[in-house]
This record gives sequence, C-alpha cells and structure tokens, in this order.
Amino acid sequence: MNRKGILVVVSGFSGVGKGTLMHCLTERYGYYALSISATTRAPREGEEDGREYFFRTKEEFEKLIEEDRLIEYACYCGNYYGTPRDYVEDQMEQGRDVILEIEFQGALKIREQYPDALLLFVMPPDTQTLVERLRGRGTETDEVIRARLAQAVEESGQVEHYDYMIINDDLDQSVEEVHRLIDSQHNKINRNLDFVRQIQEEIKAFAKGE
Amino acid sequence: MNRKGILVVVSGFSGVGKGTLMHCLTERYGYYALSISATTRAPREGEEDGREYFFRTKEEFEKLIEEDRLIEYACYCGNYYGTPRDYVEDQMEQGRDVILEIEFQGALKIREQYPDALLLFVMPPDTQTLVERLRGRGTETDEVIRARLAQAVEESGQVEHYDYMIINDDLDQSVEEVHRLIDSQHNKINRNLDFVRQIQEEIKAFAKGE
Repeated sequence: MNRKGILVVVSGFSGVGKGTLMHCLTERYGYYALSISATTRAPREGEEDGREYFFRTKEEFEKLIEEDRLIEYACYCGNYYGTPRDYVEDQMEQGRDVILEIEFQGALKIREQYPDALLLFVMPPDTQTLVERLRGRGTETDEVIRARLAQAVEESGQVEHYDYMIINDDLDQSVEEVHRLIDSQHNKINRNLDFVRQIQEEIKAFAKGE
Repeated sequence: MNRKGILVVVSGFSGVGKGTLMHCLTERYGYYALSISATTRAPREGEEDGREYFFRTKEEFEKLIEEDRLIEYACYCGNYYGTPRDYVEDQMEQGRDVILEIEFQGALKIREQYPDALLLFVMPPDTQTLVERLRGRGTETDEVIRARLAQAVEESGQVEHYDYMIINDDLDQSVEEVHRLIDSQHNKINRNLDFVRQIQEEIKAFAKGE
C-alpha cells in the first residue's frame, strides 16, 4: 500500500469546531502533521507564534508571497493568511498526511496545485448549534459573528468542490470519521498503480508458463 | 446524512477471493444487498438457481437483453453474464448499498450509467498466493487457470478506472476495509448537497438578523 503523504484540506463555517476536531485527531494519531499557517492577524490571548500561527507583519508576509514560498494565501477579514510550502512538501515526502485548516478560497487553490488532495468540509449538525457555539466562545460581539457567518456562507457557495462532508455532532465520532476518510485515500487506485502493474506483469509471466 | 443506496462494483483476478470477501461482508453487515447475476454458464456442483446465479438458457438471456432488463452483460469464456436492472434499482431506492461482483468490461459499463458508483478492485497480496489459491480450488486444470489469468490480466489493463484497491491478505481485515470504503461514500459532498444548502440558507437568514 502506498504511504506517500496525503494533503488534507479541512474547511467549515466559523464556529463549527474544525480546530478542536483537528487537534484531537493529531493527538490521537501521531502520524498526522498539522500545517501551521502564516498570518498578519494579531494573536488572540493564549496564542503563540509558531504554534497556532506564524505571526508575521504585512511586510514580512508580502516578502513570502514574492518569493513564492506560500502554496496559497488569501485576505480574510482584512488580514493575510497563507500556507508555507516547504513544511507541507517535506512532511508529505516523509509519508506523513498533512492537514491544512483553511478557508474556501485557499482550498480551491490547493486543489488546482494538488489534484490528489482530499478536501473535507465540516458541517454543524444544525444552525442553532453553530450559533450557540459562536456565542459561547464569548470572544466576539453578535455583530461580528453575523458578519463572519455572512461572509462564510457567501464563500461556501462552491462547496461542491469539496470531496466529503463531516457532521461535527459527537467529537469522538467525528475524529474517527475524519481518520477513516483520510486513511482510505491510501487505497486509491491511482496511488497504487505501481503495485498493480507489477502483479499484472507477474501474472502474465505465469500465464505464459514462465 | 444521505442514505440513498450506493452501487458498489467489485472486481479482481480470478482466485483473488472476491466471492468469500463479499459473502463475509454481507453476513457481517445485514444492510448490504448482493446482486445476483444472470448467466448461461452451467451450474457448478452445489450452486443453486437464484442463489449464486440465475441460470438461464442462451435464448432466455437474449430475451432479457432485447427487453433492456440488464444493466450490463458480457460474454466471458463463452458464456453470457449480466446484471438484472430491477433488483439493483429497487434495493438502492430502499436505501440499501448494492454490491455487484462483475468483471472489467461490465464494471466500465456500470460507471457509464451510474457515475456515482463505487468501483473496487481486489488484489492478491502477491502473485504466488493467487496461483496457490487457484490450484487449491482443484476445480480447474493448470491450463484452464493459465488461460483465465491471461484473459483477466488482458482486461485489467484499464484498472485505473476503478476507485480503490483492496489487498485481500487477511480476510477479516479486508471485510472491514471494504465496509469502511463503502460507508464513507455516504459522506460524499455531492450526495449531501440538500442538507448543506439548507444550513447555508438558515445561516444566511441568521446573519441578516431574521
């Protein structure tokens, strides 16, 4: 079975619980690598440079763009967000499945560059749950929450470009579901053609009486 | 989650253990429906009409073709094999995942008619194991085995049209792998667009303050 790393993109509406889900996934299964984005947004309380994000100034970020050292980047709510290229490709080469938690625009750019990437879309079980989770955070006003959701819905018009949907109702079950979806990609026939071709050749030789 | 039935095509080289694998799968998980093919080949010892196959005369089979009551049919080793349409579509409507164990030509015809079908290709762990399994059956001469494998390899040139590969080494593990692959298809985003669109509309209404 081919074990070259898979590039996994995870998106979903603000407040759907993507972050917690990915955190639990990487805690439970040691072989996933969580990509760390670069951003120009200000750190929230408790966030650390190089852990949640690489916090960069606007000037530093634009230098990364210029040097083509980002797979994708986007401007979201007035801040830059981007994915450093080197880290992602190194991890995949080492056979680790790399998870990118990014929004819609970025996801579609990943798909263009990595057609074999797996695009996952995390959904809330229902709208009420989503709104309650956002309010429960207590970090944003109702106005900010509404504005963020309005933009998220607007962008998610192209949701059909994603491969699979996960309903994040029970966290434990969602972690398993994501793990299985990623793991099954290693069985994709186009990732295993070398093995298949080799067996075909051996059978052919046997059939000829060699 | 959308539970409309999925059409699953399972193929693989003669002797790879597809039959046993599918039998165990349907025994373990009651909600799969195994499609029964119609054929003009003679029953083997212990086979029963309507259980392993619908055994039909050449004339009867050609009447089914004429009336378009087969999803696909093919001539293989001098005999007709085909998939009755009614049974498959009824089961899918009832939400059951339907499994068709058919060869390469038929699989590609299924893909044309049902683009959402899941095409699985069962591989032996290695060539030696495959040959030993075929010889162990004791039902065919070495000459017949070689001829059958030669034809199978020839046809499997288009194996890249399949979606996933399963290496049938440990039966128990393979059954689980197939089950997970089929089950994950229910998470496909294009099977759940109604749900996604509904949540999008609800969020949009909330963002507008409705």
